[in-house]
Amino acid sequence: MRIGIVKERHPGERRVAASSDTVKRYVGMGLEVRIETGAGVAAAVTDAAYEAAGASIVKTAKEALADADVVLKVRKPSTDEIPLLKKGAVVVALMEPYRDRALLEALAARGVTAFSLEMVPRITRAQSMDVLSSQSNLAGYRAVLDAAAEFGRAFPMMMTAAGTVPPARCLVMGAGVAGLQAIATARRLGAVVSATDVRPAAKEQVESLGGTFVAVEDEEFKQAETAGGYAKEMSDAYKKKQAELIAETIKKQDIVITTALIPGRPAPVLVSEDMVKTMKPGSVIVDLAVEQGGNCPLSKPGEVVEAYGVKIVGHTNVPSRIAVDASALYAKNLLNFLTPLVDAESKSLKIDESDEIIKASMIAKDGKVVSEAVLKLPLEE
Amino acid sequence: MRIGIVKERHPGERRVAASSDTVKRYVGMGLEVRIETGAGVAAAVTDAAYEAAGASIVKTAKEALADADVVLKVRKPSTDEIPLLKKGAVVVALMEPYRDRALLEALAARGVTAFSLEMVPRITRAQSMDVLSSQSNLAGYRAVLDAAAEFGRAFPMMMTAAGTVPPARCLVMGAGVAGLQAIATARRLGAVVSATDVRPAAKEQVESLGGTFVAVEDEEFKQAETAGGYAKEMSDAYKKKQAELIAETIKKQDIVITTALIPGRPAPVLVSEDMVKTMKPGSVIVDLAVEQGGNCPLSKPGEVVEAYGVKIVGHTNVPSRIAVDASALYAKNLLNFLTPLVDAESKSLKIDESDEIIKASMIAKDGKVVSEAVLKLPLEE
Repeated sequence: MRIGIVKERHPGERRVAASSDTVKRYVGMGLEVRIETGAGVAAAVTDAAYEAAGASIVKTAKEALADADVVLKVRKPSTDEIPLLKKGAVVVALMEPYRDRALLEALAARGVTAFSLEMVPRITRAQSMDVLSSQSNLAGYRAVLDAAAEFGRAFPMMMTAAGTVPPARCLVMGAGVAGLQAIATARRLGAVVSATDVRPAAKEQVESLGGTFVAVEDEEFKQAETAGGYAKEMSDAYKKKQAELIAETIKKQDIVITTALIPGRPAPVLVSEDMVKTMKPGSVIVDLAVEQGGNCPLSKPGEVVEAYGVKIVGHTNVPSRIAVDASALYAKNLLNFLTPLVDAESKSLKIDESDEIIKASMIAKDGKVVSEAVLKLPLEE
Repeated sequence: MRIGIVKERHPGERRVAASSDTVKRYVGMGLEVRIETGAGVAAAVTDAAYEAAGASIVKTAKEALADADVVLKVRKPSTDEIPLLKKGAVVVALMEPYRDRALLEALAARGVTAFSLEMVPRITRAQSMDVLSSQSNLAGYRAVLDAAAEFGRAFPMMMTAAGTVPPARCLVMGAGVAGLQAIATARRLGAVVSATDVRPAAKEQVESLGGTFVAVEDEEFKQAETAGGYAKEMSDAYKKKQAELIAETIKKQDIVITTALIPGRPAPVLVSEDMVKTMKPGSVIVDLAVEQGGNCPLSKPGEVVEAYGVKIVGHTNVPSRIAVDASALYAKNLLNFLTPLVDAESKSLKIDESDEIIKASMIAKDGKVVSEAVLKLPLEE
């Protein structure tokens, strides 16, 4: 059985679907690994490192994909790559199932069995395959560094002979995986950090990282907080008070990092243009949701825009901006996904279609898009 | 008495010589402050903020400089600015006394009294005027962020469901003001930090910041260490052993930050091309001495070059990359320098030429370059 790995050609994509470590593991499982030359260069993995791990290097994507039984990728196969896939091959990648249905149909039509790693359910057994966590974690780290790069001041308080530099004030909006790592990183760098989340239960996590949770802590909040998890919708009166508190808080910040995403839907607006106007000159907003429409209406994908003296950072594909670690963890997620599908005896694939993880993540098989979740989604433009 | 502040026009210079805070202080001393419009924009100080502090905003550099008794600048006056200076005015700036003697002569010929802030002696009374410290401190902070921006991995160890990301290994070469802040910042971000310095006495400072001092700790070292300060030259045998140890250490690093400068002379080579070859792909070198010829022969001013899979970062004017704080501290240094020269009664300048600080920093007066230190320097090309 052969695994094929190609150089990612999506614009700006620096990640790669295999690390020397995972190649070694596949080879140890008795599998053959073929890698297109230069596939790992942008993620600091040389051809020589892959070869030392037991892979063979080939000159073209065509050679890497020809006869590959399993194709591991970061981004979903492009229209150029689909014709190179072997009929019946298994393809695992970030399929962006909410986008470009035509491409998914073309992939299905090629006769491959396609898995969308983003759709692996968030159950305990699948934690080690969770690409959303592994990549969001690094995005949260990188967002803070990207803010610090644009910010004309230092994050930590500095006491110098010429006077004291006050610490930066940083607000993280959304305390998911990315938000929590952003809180931790901004704290490491010495900022005074606060955070918001629609889930009152996030308060404890934020505080455990040394952040202050920004919330109107009335009776309604306290009840919701103890209820835990994804709590019930808050009342309109509460939402109004909370929105006012957040607007007041944003005024005082030097750095705002927004991380709110809703799968398959446009990102919610968290920082309105009016709020940006209230911020101090030189402040920085990093909008991690810019590719889903943005948490700030002024952010633009791939740009750092300046509005009302505030820099609004809209880098796209933030995990790829820290490609070495992002690749290493993504490759490990792939290894953990693939390992249970490989029969140790026959060294061939044995896919249990009744398995919860397989059911949720398989999006194409036998010429058809098979995922109910994908089929029932509203088609995006 | 009137102070004039202009927008800095040196390419890439974002700093400004006054903050709202220092303007307020000058006005409180009974001085008038005139500022060219937009002078503070790149350092996040608006015209409105200066006006609120008591300055008047004028439309051109010419207006700001006309009749100014004291001109405060970041960079030395350019050939365009010199004719705008009033005869007899006091000009205080970073004069780069080791460069461009012709410009210093032109400045002297204009009949101004010029002070070079870099030449203020490093005595206790002058600590609050020490621009080398205030700017190097921020350069050391920024160097770590610039390294992190180019590095494809995270600095801190991260324990995730997909495996553990090891911490970055960072070597700081030169434990002066910039080096010590680089050590502190890299440690904050979670790296494993070590440092070198030609002064064995630096060991204690490095260790107090949580870094490991890289040195061959033989008898000779121990004697030099307890001697303290700028110790005697080490023996050739010691230097050889130490060089070998450093070469071995560099191999294992992810990040190397070099900070070694010798005033008025080319920077020493600390990381040779052969050493770069031994580093891992994806490693990053930040050369803070790039403008003085560089601590690494491969670094290029204003560029990020890649050689042997290693990125070599050669940003110039690093303090200007963190212009808001750099300006605030620089402006404070200027305030502390100028305050003792202003007679509280008459609100005019009273310069005591016998004062140690004045003697050391005055470089032009009555039509002549007057600094002995400058006059005896070898002329640079």
